[in-house]
Amino acid sequence: MEHITSRWGTLVLIALLDRPHRFGELRREIGRVSEKMLAQTLRTLERDGLVHRDARPVIPPRVDYSLTGLGREAAERVRDLAHWTERRLAAVERAREAYDAASP
Amino acid sequence: MEHITSRWGTLVLIALLDRPHRFGELRREIGRVSEKMLAQTLRTLERDGLVHRDARPVIPPRVDYSLTGLGREAAERVRDLAHWTERRLAAVERAREAYDAASP
Repeated sequence: MEHITSRWGTLVLIALLDRPHRFGELRREIGRVSEKMLAQTLRTLERDGLVHRDARPVIPPRVDYSLTGLGREAAERVRDLAHWTERRLAAVERAREAYDAASP
Repeated sequence: MEHITSRWGTLVLIALLDRPHRFGELRREIGRVSEKMLAQTLRTLERDGLVHRDARPVIPPRVDYSLTGLGREAAERVRDLAHWTERRLAAVERAREAYDAASP
């Protein structure tokens, strides 16, 4: 579960729900992720059977990443959770302020 | 999001979906969680407005933990994701074995 709910795992899965992406596209879309961290995230998701890596034998080499059927199931659930978190962030912030104000 | 998808955060939310729990009940039900880690998890979830802590002025003191409305929304989504993960674990394991066998 931690692979799909990690910061970068979640963002990769949500991006791929839209359509397949090339490495550079993912990097631009996700933002602030290092090349190394993105490569490691993709490798983990590929190893888990959630992401399919398609390397085309063309010049220059072209690699596309897409969701497998399993990956799509995971991505839809993770997106639902991430969107819920975004929608409720203001309520969570208010709760934290109230908690901190009441704490000695 | 990491508060509700952490190992202990997820297990606490799922346990509380059933019914309110006392601290000791949670500890027994979750298993292998230290007292300190469980207390910290509950404090984080309470501060986020997901868990309500009800301390009764009785002797001996009695403290019940329950979900708030916000917590119930989070818990249902997290449970859905955790159950999906359990159901798909065998498929993920098979994917990992295939990946490792194909890797140099």
